[in-house]
Amino acid sequence: MSDDRQASGEDALIARYFKPLATAPGAFGLDDDAAVIKPGSGEEIVVTTDAIVAGVHFLLDDPPDTVARKALRVNLSDIAAKGAEPAGFVLTLALTSIDDAWLSAFARGLGEDATSFGCPLLGGDTVSTPGPLSISITAFGRVAAGKMVHRAGARPGDRVLVTGTIGDAALGLDILKGGQIARALRDDGAGRDTLIARYRVPQPRNALAGAVRDFASAAMDVSDGLAGDLRKLCAASGVSALVDLPSVPISAAAARLLSQGATSIETLVSGGDDYEILCCVSEARFDAFAAEAGRAGVALTSIGTVIAGHDAPRFLDAQGAETELKRLSFSHF
Amino acid sequence: MSDDRQASGEDALIARYFKPLATAPGAFGLDDDAAVIKPGSGEEIVVTTDAIVAGVHFLLDDPPDTVARKALRVNLSDIAAKGAEPAGFVLTLALTSIDDAWLSAFARGLGEDATSFGCPLLGGDTVSTPGPLSISITAFGRVAAGKMVHRAGARPGDRVLVTGTIGDAALGLDILKGGQIARALRDDGAGRDTLIARYRVPQPRNALAGAVRDFASAAMDVSDGLAGDLRKLCAASGVSALVDLPSVPISAAAARLLSQGATSIETLVSGGDDYEILCCVSEARFDAFAAEAGRAGVALTSIGTVIAGHDAPRFLDAQGAETELKRLSFSHF
Repeated sequence: MSDDRQASGEDALIARYFKPLATAPGAFGLDDDAAVIKPGSGEEIVVTTDAIVAGVHFLLDDPPDTVARKALRVNLSDIAAKGAEPAGFVLTLALTSIDDAWLSAFARGLGEDATSFGCPLLGGDTVSTPGPLSISITAFGRVAAGKMVHRAGARPGDRVLVTGTIGDAALGLDILKGGQIARALRDDGAGRDTLIARYRVPQPRNALAGAVRDFASAAMDVSDGLAGDLRKLCAASGVSALVDLPSVPISAAAARLLSQGATSIETLVSGGDDYEILCCVSEARFDAFAAEAGRAGVALTSIGTVIAGHDAPRFLDAQGAETELKRLSFSHF
Repeated sequence: MSDDRQASGEDALIARYFKPLATAPGAFGLDDDAAVIKPGSGEEIVVTTDAIVAGVHFLLDDPPDTVARKALRVNLSDIAAKGAEPAGFVLTLALTSIDDAWLSAFARGLGEDATSFGCPLLGGDTVSTPGPLSISITAFGRVAAGKMVHRAGARPGDRVLVTGTIGDAALGLDILKGGQIARALRDDGAGRDTLIARYRVPQPRNALAGAVRDFASAAMDVSDGLAGDLRKLCAASGVSALVDLPSVPISAAAARLLSQGATSIETLVSGGDDYEILCCVSEARFDAFAAEAGRAGVALTSIGTVIAGHDAPRFLDAQGAETELKRLSFSHF
């Protein structure tokens, strides 16, 4: 706490680090108490909010620019999975102190991502906390009215599809925590770096948003674990699914760890923090969707089929036998 | 942390406590990853975000329903000061544990205010934190395009006006912390309760939003102290102001404390947490604005005049002499 006759610490901090990021006209240069968003004609605004907390969703010694990128990207991932185009975001920073080196790097990473994803800072709030550091972002997307893609909508016969690779972030977190993956990759610095980067800086699939909007019957991003998130999508859609576990896309690093017995497919599909898009597309529309994904440069893999029923999705091994997963997802509670 | 095959702790918590509050169609019953907001024809969306942290903006033993009301109302106050009508909000709850009694009371208070202010829950995120408990809300308002009222816009000759009474919340906080106000009001339980209530449950002036939109040249809500917030409004408008300190509206309880020497006008005008509207209105429009305030049932007081210049506002005592305020506002940093 401080009291002075000059601009408060908060105002000075905002002016120095965040005003340069407030490039949208509706942000009013962060000089006002509120921002303005105006959807285009026939559009509506998609809103999502996700917070990350030090020690829970990121590690306190993660580089500050990656913390900023992760905070924004976990929200961009939701915007992408809903078929919307980024429109801007507001930021709440709960800081334990004003550390200029940390804030400077944080703002740089945030600004670079805001620019590259076309998602400008619109406003925010900075509060003091005894700890831990946490970052809450509410992000906005634009979508043609009524065209947001929902979790509900998957139909029996649809393909179950996922982008990118699954499980890398959970392995990266294990490395950062000095777990068994760190030991297994003791001599593989490149593998370690790849997996850590997947944990720290997810790659939201905003390039695929238009195709998801045009072709998917249902979609969500994978944040808490592929298995658990598919269960949620199926529950919302009133369907079940069969997943072919050997089809789940994994990275070369994850494949090596799997072959060494250092991890399990269950760890990968329940690990969380993937920020890939999980979606369902009818067989009739699949080729066109796959072609769009190819044009967008986003890897897309069929991992199973939506079936009728209300049971939790079933996961089949290479022999077609059901694998009982002891856990489906990661929960912080 | 827990892992199970049932709904996660977070999902169960949301379903039990917050789904009943998600009454807007665009909330999709909190069953999706995002919400949708659609402004009416010719409208745009005003966005504001404010967080409150236990031990900083509220006290950990404050009743949970008042914590919820405060978290929402500090945002509603911004919406009102910008001349907008409430449209909904998203909530990020950072919880240290799942305490059903606390959450149940919190959700009840939040739901009652959401209903009475016409500001439904649209979505949110619940995260685990080692502490402290914190609540971040992003609230939305509707306003005719281009009609948001800014901090900038005050003109020399405008009246400086403020709603309600100033300084009560700072006195209430002092009581809760067992400070000198608590001792001064040792025998006045009703006075203590009134001031504590002003700290815990601010009264945002959403009833005045339409009049602010129609008549004010500039406006903001008073959150960090009247003196410092007026300084910000003047800086944004490129003007200065003269404030007649004896005109600043104070409650009967504050007036008694002032006459006893238990507090000072400086404490009242720099204390923060008032959540009243500070605005400027031209002399020509003042009568009409005052009439609207009367119809809305919101007390409104002229406390000074906007003047040309770039100096900080000056505060004059009953003799017209300038009072040098040692502090203008409250900063947590």
